[in-house]
Amino acid sequence: MPSTEHMLATVNAYVDAFDRGDAEAVRDLFAPDASVEDPAGTPPKVGHQAILDFYKMSMQTGAKLKLEGPVRCNADTAAFAFSVHLEQQGQPMRIDVIDLFKFADDGKVSSMIAYFGESNMHMGAQANA
Amino acid sequence: MPSTEHMLATVNAYVDAFDRGDAEAVRDLFAPDASVEDPAGTPPKVGHQAILDFYKMSMQTGAKLKLEGPVRCNADTAAFAFSVHLEQQGQPMRIDVIDLFKFADDGKVSSMIAYFGESNMHMGAQANA
Repeated sequence: MPSTEHMLATVNAYVDAFDRGDAEAVRDLFAPDASVEDPAGTPPKVGHQAILDFYKMSMQTGAKLKLEGPVRCNADTAAFAFSVHLEQQGQPMRIDVIDLFKFADDGKVSSMIAYFGESNMHMGAQANA
Repeated sequence: MPSTEHMLATVNAYVDAFDRGDAEAVRDLFAPDASVEDPAGTPPKVGHQAILDFYKMSMQTGAKLKLEGPVRCNADTAAFAFSVHLEQQGQPMRIDVIDLFKFADDGKVSSMIAYFGESNMHMGAQANA
């Protein structure tokens, strides 16, 4: 079972790597056979190559992540609320998301699920509200 | 598939009913065969009677819930961050939690999982930080 400290460090490393556009560093937080379901209900990206491709694409939007409140650590799972900030068609956009990271015994993330929907997407002035 | 509006209304009704100590109203938001896993990883409470007993016990602590940020609605699932406020041994206590509510087609909550751990429990001055 990974420690709470390890899970917290991994979530912070994830946000940092995402924000500096380092898709390889994000990939390396995941187990080789990990799955990424983002958003929940879509076909998961499975394995290091698919995960790398997904994050490279996501980072091309220039999106930055901001943790919103403390990471909830429970046994082998970290749950955390955050906001995604990007520009679309010259306008600010914010997406409010909650992620679940499940950890393998070796400390790598074995699965990630992202929860958000249309009601969590805000454009223009609303993005800064 | 329940609407986003329905899921938001259910989460708000849950918080309201909890805070006024109405365990029956909380129970009625759940499907008769629903499961409540609180915290994640513990044996789930299954069915209306077990859920009612669990919430009656939870409410006896005098705990109040405060939503922290927007509810994330994704397909049939609502994910939301909140804090639990109570007193223990005359001291304020705060627990930071993320809940997942999964909805059945009829709009009732079919499963609830609550994510938090020791690192999310704060006593005394830290509870108000």
